[in-house]
Amino acid sequence: MSKYQYLKEQVYEANMEIPREELAIVTFGNVSGVDRAAGVVAIKPSGVPYHRLKVEDIVIVDLDNVLVEGNMRPSSDTKTHTLLYKNFSSIGGVCHTHSTYAVAWAQAIRPIPNLGTTHADHLTASIPVTEIMSDERIQRDYELETGNQILDLFGEGKLSYEEVEMVLVACHGPFTWGKDPAKAIYNSIVLEEIAKMAYLTLQINPAAVAIKQSLCDKHYFRKHGKDAYYGQGC
Amino acid sequence: MSKYQYLKEQVYEANMEIPREELAIVTFGNVSGVDRAAGVVAIKPSGVPYHRLKVEDIVIVDLDNVLVEGNMRPSSDTKTHTLLYKNFSSIGGVCHTHSTYAVAWAQAIRPIPNLGTTHADHLTASIPVTEIMSDERIQRDYELETGNQILDLFGEGKLSYEEVEMVLVACHGPFTWGKDPAKAIYNSIVLEEIAKMAYLTLQINPAAVAIKQSLCDKHYFRKHGKDAYYGQGC
Amino acid sequence: MSKYQYLKEQVYEANMEIPREELAIVTFGNVSGVDRAAGVVAIKPSGVPYHRLKVEDIVIVDLDNVLVEGNMRPSSDTKTHTLLYKNFSSIGGVCHTHSTYAVAWAQAIRPIPNLGTTHADHLTASIPVTEIMSDERIQRDYELETGNQILDLFGEGKLSYEEVEMVLVACHGPFTWGKDPAKAIYNSIVLEEIAKMAYLTLQINPAAVAIKQSLCDKHYFRKHGKDAYYGQGC
Amino acid sequence: MSKYQYLKEQVYEANMEIPREELAIVTFGNVSGVDRAAGVVAIKPSGVPYHRLKVEDIVIVDLDNVLVEGNMRPSSDTKTHTLLYKNFSSIGGVCHTHSTYAVAWAQAIRPIPNLGTTHADHLTASIPVTEIMSDERIQRDYELETGNQILDLFGEGKLSYEEVEMVLVACHGPFTWGKDPAKAIYNSIVLEEIAKMAYLTLQINPAAVAIKQSLCDKHYFRKHGKDAYYGQGC
Repeated sequence: MSKYQYLKEQVYEANMEIPREELAIVTFGNVSGVDRAAGVVAIKPSGVPYHRLKVEDIVIVDLDNVLVEGNMRPSSDTKTHTLLYKNFSSIGGVCHTHSTYAVAWAQAIRPIPNLGTTHADHLTASIPVTEIMSDERIQRDYELETGNQILDLFGEGKLSYEEVEMVLVACHGPFTWGKDPAKAIYNSIVLEEIAKMAYLTLQINPAAVAIKQSLCDKHYFRKHGKDAYYGQGC
Repeated sequence: MSKYQYLKEQVYEANMEIPREELAIVTFGNVSGVDRAAGVVAIKPSGVPYHRLKVEDIVIVDLDNVLVEGNMRPSSDTKTHTLLYKNFSSIGGVCHTHSTYAVAWAQAIRPIPNLGTTHADHLTASIPVTEIMSDERIQRDYELETGNQILDLFGEGKLSYEEVEMVLVACHGPFTWGKDPAKAIYNSIVLEEIAKMAYLTLQINPAAVAIKQSLCDKHYFRKHGKDAYYGQGC
Repeated sequence: MSKYQYLKEQVYEANMEIPREELAIVTFGNVSGVDRAAGVVAIKPSGVPYHRLKVEDIVIVDLDNVLVEGNMRPSSDTKTHTLLYKNFSSIGGVCHTHSTYAVAWAQAIRPIPNLGTTHADHLTASIPVTEIMSDERIQRDYELETGNQILDLFGEGKLSYEEVEMVLVACHGPFTWGKDPAKAIYNSIVLEEIAKMAYLTLQINPAAVAIKQSLCDKHYFRKHGKDAYYGQGC
Repeated sequence: MSKYQYLKEQVYEANMEIPREELAIVTFGNVSGVDRAAGVVAIKPSGVPYHRLKVEDIVIVDLDNVLVEGNMRPSSDTKTHTLLYKNFSSIGGVCHTHSTYAVAWAQAIRPIPNLGTTHADHLTASIPVTEIMSDERIQRDYELETGNQILDLFGEGKLSYEEVEMVLVACHGPFTWGKDPAKAIYNSIVLEEIAKMAYLTLQINPAAVAIKQSLCDKHYFRKHGKDAYYGQGC
């Protein structure tokens, strides 16, 4: 049995949420998890349909994308995942899907405004969208540069990756992360629902605006930080 | 076995309708029920995913929100529920969801107009939306004040809580109630469908208006009051 | 065993398509079937949820709405069904649902234009919508008059009930019919899909217009009449 | 056992994806496959509901539409399929559905612009829509001429059928193809998702435009051609 069996199982389970929650069709999407002590990342193999995916198919690479264990090629998006692990030091899982409403906002190149408490329960900011990638970056090392597009949004001190655990890559789709693979996929489920709610809200009332800061903070800090009182405190 | 076993089972069953009817994702939403003779309320524990919820997890509190029985924290929305029980003397169940279309109307801060007989079968009025909560109330006791926002709509004598068993809390989402937990969740199912129908109607015809009073009353009184003739009369 | 067992089973099976095809929530909707030789109609009982409906619950009435067999009240829409049977002499089944997109068009009080071959495979005309019922009719005998609203559209010689097997009752929802209960519910399934397609088409291109008569006729007569060549000819 | 058993099974399995993926209601849609060595096409029989379809019902015709084997009539769209096989020499499967969003674009008579990487992963061009068929063609040999409408788009050297494996027939719906029946239905699944994403994108941002060529090419050639690196290389 693999010495990374536990990580592979976590990553497998998180990947299988993608079809169960209808966050992508066919082979699209991928979840990874990191074992920082061992210096390895477990990730979905490239192009494998979910109904054929098995725990032992999960590929192990190191943080420089070198294959450590596995008979299949890792996800073509692997370099995006590892770059996020290197730069977001406290995260343990990353998820990428092509969920319909989140992709629509990404294709519209519009951040998702914080229109209500479902959004504010998870983050106070808008869900940001990256710039369109330059031709130079596209030619250079596309999947690595996809990660850099994300880092550009978070590295200027405007956004905290620990608060904002989700982003839209322009013309492409969502990436989310969290303390482990399960939290990363959880954030993708929530993002898709927020994206749909925001879409419908603006169809009903095109003049709808972001909720005020006091309501936003109230909901966010019910669930986050030392005074949180939502959930079972574990 | 708990002396509130019957109430816990009713409340558990009503909560499990939330994922079955797709009225909320992950852990969102909660249903409660009251035993007025015993002076207790049974409610979903906070932050527990539905697929892990068990009958014995249902928490018992009194009408002042003091824990009576249970190993888990009650829903963070408990104070909203108990305030409604104290003020709406004939209700036996309360339900709160984050169902997609109802939330969209709540985020749009628009009441749902009565555009047809599916709506009129359940209430003659528009489905009302509360005011946005003041900063003062947000700081004071948020979940209690969420209840007060609802009472503000019903307390001015404009609306009867016995006819209008559903409301949208601005920027948040729907609350519904009824004679028991099953009726409360039933009203959430109906509200989501009415919210979707109204959304689509106004997309097809932005000039669509509320149905006339005679048609509205005809449908409402087919199902309610002494001359009702819908159903099996039990 | 009931002498109408065969009819009850047909009607039961057709009713159970309503929840399977998601054409109505909770207890809404009803399908009936007629045995013209026996002079009876079998119909869903009023207000019974589909998951509790049993074959033996199906109610038998005569064409004047008098109870012939059954322990439950027939659907509150029974008079609409029987009026259609009396006036549309070749039909054997009637179906009424509250399917979401068809209701939206009914609430928008807009006929559904024939925008493509999915529609033209079933009828060449727009799917008509009735007038709003007069207060006088509402007060008189509401469900009977709902039938009369439908007859008003077909009785002026403009529309053939044998070609146009579906209608929208303004501010209410769809009624469909056919040679037997199975065809009636089939038409409700098709109507909902056509209603959704037409909605989306006009969102994409608000200037979309009805298809031309030659294309419309080609598709309709592939499936209907003596030169039909779709299906297995039985 | 039929000498075409293997082809029949492939075509049966591909057809059964239509209801599983909700690409058509009732009996709509059909998939075929060709055995070029044997000179035969296997196709769904006309008007058979999917839940009753069996492997042995699949009909075998030659490329001139003459029945070779089978007890049922082949799909009424057979001539469209065979014309595509005759003209697109490297394809092995053809699929036609009435999937909701693709039909909406076809009824809107609008090509689907390439708004993001989900689209670019599969083709760089817009998804084209045919001209409306002339009355003369409609009268002549409708299903054959449906194929000719498609060929008109591809025969002028503007489009490669090997890159663009999907098309919208104006006022009707989508046709897709591929190296075998499984790839043909795969393309119909992808097309429906792209159609929905494009619809939502333009609702959110009516000014959204096609992605730039460099990004488009990057994604397309990740999956296609000699430098492809997506998937397992088999």
